[in-house]
Amino acid sequence: MIHPNQSSTSDLAQAQVSPLAKMYQDVRAHSTKLCKALKTEDYVVQPIQDVSPPKWHLAHTTWFFEQFILKPYKKDYQIFDDSYNFIFNSYYESMGDKMLRDHRGNMTRPSTEDVYLYRKYVDEQMLDWMHTAEFEAQSVLSELTELGLNHEQQHQELLVTDIKYILGNNPLFPAYLQHTETWKPKADLSKQEYIEISEGLYDIGFSGDGFHYDNEEGAHQVFLHNFRLLNRLITNGEYLEFMEAGGYDNYDLWLADGRDYVRQHAIKAPQYWHQIEGRWYQYTLHGLQALDEHAPVTHISHYEADAYARWKNKRLPTEQEWEVACKLAQYDQNLHKLHRANFVETEILQPQALQAAPTQDTPAQMMGDVWEWTQSAYLPYPFYQREKGALGEYNGKFMSNQIVLRGGSCATPESHIRCTYRNFFQPDKRWQFTGIRLAEYF
Amino acid sequence: MIHPNQSSTSDLAQAQVSPLAKMYQDVRAHSTKLCKALKTEDYVVQPIQDVSPPKWHLAHTTWFFEQFILKPYKKDYQIFDDSYNFIFNSYYESMGDKMLRDHRGNMTRPSTEDVYLYRKYVDEQMLDWMHTAEFEAQSVLSELTELGLNHEQQHQELLVTDIKYILGNNPLFPAYLQHTETWKPKADLSKQEYIEISEGLYDIGFSGDGFHYDNEEGAHQVFLHNFRLLNRLITNGEYLEFMEAGGYDNYDLWLADGRDYVRQHAIKAPQYWHQIEGRWYQYTLHGLQALDEHAPVTHISHYEADAYARWKNKRLPTEQEWEVACKLAQYDQNLHKLHRANFVETEILQPQALQAAPTQDTPAQMMGDVWEWTQSAYLPYPFYQREKGALGEYNGKFMSNQIVLRGGSCATPESHIRCTYRNFFQPDKRWQFTGIRLAEYF
Amino acid sequence: MIHPNQSSTSDLAQAQVSPLAKMYQDVRAHSTKLCKALKTEDYVVQPIQDVSPPKWHLAHTTWFFEQFILKPYKKDYQIFDDSYNFIFNSYYESMGDKMLRDHRGNMTRPSTEDVYLYRKYVDEQMLDWMHTAEFEAQSVLSELTELGLNHEQQHQELLVTDIKYILGNNPLFPAYLQHTETWKPKADLSKQEYIEISEGLYDIGFSGDGFHYDNEEGAHQVFLHNFRLLNRLITNGEYLEFMEAGGYDNYDLWLADGRDYVRQHAIKAPQYWHQIEGRWYQYTLHGLQALDEHAPVTHISHYEADAYARWKNKRLPTEQEWEVACKLAQYDQNLHKLHRANFVETEILQPQALQAAPTQDTPAQMMGDVWEWTQSAYLPYPFYQREKGALGEYNGKFMSNQIVLRGGSCATPESHIRCTYRNFFQPDKRWQFTGIRLAEYF
Amino acid sequence: MIHPNQSSTSDLAQAQVSPLAKMYQDVRAHSTKLCKALKTEDYVVQPIQDVSPPKWHLAHTTWFFEQFILKPYKKDYQIFDDSYNFIFNSYYESMGDKMLRDHRGNMTRPSTEDVYLYRKYVDEQMLDWMHTAEFEAQSVLSELTELGLNHEQQHQELLVTDIKYILGNNPLFPAYLQHTETWKPKADLSKQEYIEISEGLYDIGFSGDGFHYDNEEGAHQVFLHNFRLLNRLITNGEYLEFMEAGGYDNYDLWLADGRDYVRQHAIKAPQYWHQIEGRWYQYTLHGLQALDEHAPVTHISHYEADAYARWKNKRLPTEQEWEVACKLAQYDQNLHKLHRANFVETEILQPQALQAAPTQDTPAQMMGDVWEWTQSAYLPYPFYQREKGALGEYNGKFMSNQIVLRGGSCATPESHIRCTYRNFFQPDKRWQFTGIRLAEYF
Repeated sequence: MIHPNQSSTSDLAQAQVSPLAKMYQDVRAHSTKLCKALKTEDYVVQPIQDVSPPKWHLAHTTWFFEQFILKPYKKDYQIFDDSYNFIFNSYYESMGDKMLRDHRGNMTRPSTEDVYLYRKYVDEQMLDWMHTAEFEAQSVLSELTELGLNHEQQHQELLVTDIKYILGNNPLFPAYLQHTETWKPKADLSKQEYIEISEGLYDIGFSGDGFHYDNEEGAHQVFLHNFRLLNRLITNGEYLEFMEAGGYDNYDLWLADGRDYVRQHAIKAPQYWHQIEGRWYQYTLHGLQALDEHAPVTHISHYEADAYARWKNKRLPTEQEWEVACKLAQYDQNLHKLHRANFVETEILQPQALQAAPTQDTPAQMMGDVWEWTQSAYLPYPFYQREKGALGEYNGKFMSNQIVLRGGSCATPESHIRCTYRNFFQPDKRWQFTGIRLAEYF
Repeated sequence: MIHPNQSSTSDLAQAQVSPLAKMYQDVRAHSTKLCKALKTEDYVVQPIQDVSPPKWHLAHTTWFFEQFILKPYKKDYQIFDDSYNFIFNSYYESMGDKMLRDHRGNMTRPSTEDVYLYRKYVDEQMLDWMHTAEFEAQSVLSELTELGLNHEQQHQELLVTDIKYILGNNPLFPAYLQHTETWKPKADLSKQEYIEISEGLYDIGFSGDGFHYDNEEGAHQVFLHNFRLLNRLITNGEYLEFMEAGGYDNYDLWLADGRDYVRQHAIKAPQYWHQIEGRWYQYTLHGLQALDEHAPVTHISHYEADAYARWKNKRLPTEQEWEVACKLAQYDQNLHKLHRANFVETEILQPQALQAAPTQDTPAQMMGDVWEWTQSAYLPYPFYQREKGALGEYNGKFMSNQIVLRGGSCATPESHIRCTYRNFFQPDKRWQFTGIRLAEYF
Repeated sequence: MIHPNQSSTSDLAQAQVSPLAKMYQDVRAHSTKLCKALKTEDYVVQPIQDVSPPKWHLAHTTWFFEQFILKPYKKDYQIFDDSYNFIFNSYYESMGDKMLRDHRGNMTRPSTEDVYLYRKYVDEQMLDWMHTAEFEAQSVLSELTELGLNHEQQHQELLVTDIKYILGNNPLFPAYLQHTETWKPKADLSKQEYIEISEGLYDIGFSGDGFHYDNEEGAHQVFLHNFRLLNRLITNGEYLEFMEAGGYDNYDLWLADGRDYVRQHAIKAPQYWHQIEGRWYQYTLHGLQALDEHAPVTHISHYEADAYARWKNKRLPTEQEWEVACKLAQYDQNLHKLHRANFVETEILQPQALQAAPTQDTPAQMMGDVWEWTQSAYLPYPFYQREKGALGEYNGKFMSNQIVLRGGSCATPESHIRCTYRNFFQPDKRWQFTGIRLAEYF
Repeated sequence: MIHPNQSSTSDLAQAQVSPLAKMYQDVRAHSTKLCKALKTEDYVVQPIQDVSPPKWHLAHTTWFFEQFILKPYKKDYQIFDDSYNFIFNSYYESMGDKMLRDHRGNMTRPSTEDVYLYRKYVDEQMLDWMHTAEFEAQSVLSELTELGLNHEQQHQELLVTDIKYILGNNPLFPAYLQHTETWKPKADLSKQEYIEISEGLYDIGFSGDGFHYDNEEGAHQVFLHNFRLLNRLITNGEYLEFMEAGGYDNYDLWLADGRDYVRQHAIKAPQYWHQIEGRWYQYTLHGLQALDEHAPVTHISHYEADAYARWKNKRLPTEQEWEVACKLAQYDQNLHKLHRANFVETEILQPQALQAAPTQDTPAQMMGDVWEWTQSAYLPYPFYQREKGALGEYNGKFMSNQIVLRGGSCATPESHIRCTYRNFFQPDKRWQFTGIRLAEYF
């Protein structure tokens, strides 16, 4: 088996590379780096439908470049293997037959080694084309490559959460990383402070030039009433109070669907929590560890976030409120200056205690650490137009029965996130790094 | 068995009755009237979980008065039968143990006759109390009675749709009503016209004095962009064009959940449609009838409504847009003057072709005929406060994974509806009288 | 609704009737008599797939005569209603499309009244034909009528057990019968005695002239080793000892399938047993009653019977052993002389304590009270030939994954049973009157 | 990863070894040899519940020696890893908690490499103990080792069929073996000949000294009627005739359960058959190959075998008939002399055309090639006593809802099989090498 760290693009990396090629190499190398700690067996399985085999992620992101860029646009391109379209297409109806999603974990072939060869081949073809593409192809090449790389970054986040699920549900609780530091809180967590934002018309959605998804388009105005937003995330310690107060059994606090959900699955705590001889532990990618009461609570469903908020006589923010607060604090402009925001680049892969003491106007922990459940259903913005064809299947067709999350997590690449970024999951999903920030009207 | 039309309240009706007592008698009598055409067997079954036995509706609405009014407030009230709380509680967790919802159709006892005796007993107790209640009890009595009667009106609509399901899925296709008139269209349906509404801040939610549900509360402002609304409902004939154009098989048109739904259930047409020797028929409560191409399409899921709109390059309205249009046309004020709006009082129980030619400013068919799917998820309004306890379970806990519908249907009592009324169902539900009105930005 | 006891055949009954017509009238009248205590609602429902609506039994047994006798053989016979073949066919693939079995309980029409009219019509046609049939038709008429009546007797037993299920799972525990006597034991139940039968070749299967099913045919020899058979049935009291000794939790005692079954359904006692404030009660068709420790245990699965036997270091008998013991005791010859064997004719409808003290050679309670689980899988006898066509579907196609039971129960018509009679159910079925007799080798 | 062929026992093999140690080394080496062609990924997955990961088989068979021999009997034995008992216990309730069977395919750890280390460690411990065991331990050691090796041989057969399932359901149809020879028929297959066996009392079950399972014990007599047995297996070509005659759609031929089964799963041909452009192919462990019409049909359920037999107006033999024919032909005595019986040792791993022309008295292909479905339910023999405790769970608790198969297959080790050997599976299982031999009475 080839070693993931012997990147297939190493030779080309020596040459003078364009910014696009540099970005391509960096993003692609990050995927293989994330898999470095895996054993071959870990690449294969799909313990639940939501969790795809790491091998599948590596191949599917590669297939995306082959299928949407190389095959339609690169002259004389030779498909690596005809059968891969069937195996590694995820959900694009317009791209032909696809394997049933829950069969991914039965596919022992192509082997992991073959998948790495597939990556190497497509990388060489992509980089070769970036080097040689005629002028008129440059625009489509760079536009689609950027989309492909953002697509790969989304799967990098899934790689982390899926690996965590695979290892965290193994009775041996194997560690993926050696234990690293745990951040100590740098602000007083004993009380909660709220930032006020006044009622008025605000701009929502992406405008400007950079990369963004179509679901952020349709810049428009919304009228918001006076609201307050908690200036940090809810911690494990605070969530434990809710549990100890009988929160999971108090039907007054729950949405009906949520109550059915926790009952049916006998849920009594966040995912990966284990009570052993009276003490609480949490499986992390560093192995099983004592619960850090100062770190943000994570791996909870929308139902649990909503019930917690109701218990505190608060609510979850709308996605518009969150976005307005993010923009007012100029997070996008300041992100590269942020002192150690906890994205995937910190390599901790677990939400950490508050580091930057919030100022009066700036809610902390808006970006990184955990995806924050909002109370907003994932719906099209005004003026949103779903594209026809495969790329139109990317976001638009999922605008049903899902909830918006904002702000990225400890598994998100820093360059992937922005104030207008809309993530979305069904309200019962817990395997992502999800968390809670409270809001209220005033 | 006692005959439903020999109303238990007949003697009392002779006496001078208060407006509350009059309203009570009228609403209660309507429930039994709806069941007049049933055979005893029809009262019992629950063919799918959504559809409750008519007997259950008759008893559950009665239980509501006993449980929330007579038992807590009426002095020396004797419970009719202790076991009924278990059997006829629907979903109120705070009211104690309840039967599993899908077991309702196995309960052959209490018999239909016993349920009518239960109604008679509770009616006598309620009317007696209305007659004799001391001054300080009047307020709670009238407030809760009004809620109980609105609750019963909701179940009256369900009675109609559940009876339709029970008879319409019987291979004998029995008629519930003798065939009555079919309305001829009174306006040109060959083209579609749109009413324009300008962008700006609008008031949303109920304000004023009359009865309303808590989910309409929290009057607030929203900013709407310029939009147009179709001035009538989509017809069967128009929907048939969508079907014949392959709409059900065109994946570009569907939400992912919707596509899975129609595939899994092999759905190719609205519910109750049957193609027999090349012609389309529709089961109605008058029996199986040739499809009326001018009547509004009905018994479609939100997914089908959404796909139809996308096929026309339009969209469904938001609930706010619908409400603003309703209020601008002063529907609430004019409702009692409407010439033959098609509510349950017409006793046709099937949506009918357009009767009032729409004027330039007034969209037609906003009320009655069919519930109109919006594109809005059912979520709390700003400032909405979910009540504690059983009555707080009425609406708030369902604000998850449901879609708002507006405007009432041919099975809705006219006095039950208003511009701010929010109905809600999961997007896959088809057994209600649901329909389509299109919108777009401009 | 017509009253079942005003038998449709009353006028004809006055006339001189043939033995066949007499038998026809008697058997048919028994079905309606069994339904006399029902309310109309009880006729309709199907709480689990195994349990058919009483209305369906009444119609299906009638359909059998129409479909297999009147329609093919009676000249100018007019079908009562064309749609009934679809609705009341049970499982005969050769008889055309049939309704899915688990939809029977949704069919509120045809009404119970219509079903009684259907019975009346078919009865008149059948009796008319018995009166007028030409000589050459007599043989097929009497042969098929006998089959139809035996078929109806089987459904009479199901009527009893299905009614018990419908009423016994109602939270009101309604009684079907007024309470009647309970038999006191007429023999010492404190110890168990065994009857020995010596090894040798024995004849198995039906031979002779009377009515029998095809699954009893293929008279043949088997070699049996020396065995002993318990001379009475296991009682409730004895079974309670097994429960109190932890029998349900002792994995050593169970077949793997049985262990999964009781675990999955959380089974801790026979069906219809309820422990209330520390005492055991049993729902019977007389209502909820204190457990009679001397009566035979009933409503247990084959798995429970098998586990009980293993707990006692015994086993269940094979069907051949049971049949040999039955024949040696000359049960068939003596059946009409039996002192109060507990068949449906006693109208107790519940197994009763031992009445006839067993003699040295005669095991008691072999017939009536409960169907005795054997350890034999239901398989074809040597030389058995499955008929082609619909009547061949009667028994042969069920010879898979079922267990043989012997001896009839308190719900079986006395004239229906004999030593060679093979009943069969899947091993997890508990809603029939099933019970336990032990055996061992010596 | 260590290479499976570098057997952990190689050094010890140099030394003088006892017959038991020799047998131990041979059997254990065969398991690793069977996995030699696998990629690491193939070791991990469990595509359906019946199919266990190869890694699991390798570890579970090792756990058997550790758990039942080394741990209770070897002095000072150190457990390899405490957590393995939970992970690699299969179904022994008496051995403590066990992982749910359908989670085996999610366990990426312990790795394949760790499993091979586990095998090496246990092998060294076992061989060491065989070398050094004190006299009084010899008997339990050899008895349990023999059981453990027979247990491992059973899992070797499952290894072959499970690997076939894993690779055969991969869209790439990878080959496990390079293509080898295909046997040409050495006898005229155009007609079928039957061997007659006369009625009488016959001995059934194992008697003598060699190894056997407890389910073969209880030697006893049965009376068999005159019967004939087909002198070879049914071929693919003959089965194709059944298919082409509409056998799968002819309800007269099927058991009711079988009909439901083939309908529900849309089964139209044996497992692994694929019709491509009008021609039939079969996935074999050599890859996808044109159907060999002379080879025995395989990968069919009991339902299909039974329906085929009925179509031919024949039946399947009982297990007693099969055993008597096997013993009369002295298969056990002649097995080692058989010319190329197709067991796993031929390394073809696919049933092959008839090689030995049957003589008048000797049915051919009784052993090897395919397991022959009988018509017998898997039940205890007379006098059979299920042992208490874990080893009693081996066979006895499965005597429910399963069918006996006889004779071994092309995946069975030759030393594992004998005339009295009883294999058993549920009637719907098709992933084993199963086949058909016909019988009839005369």
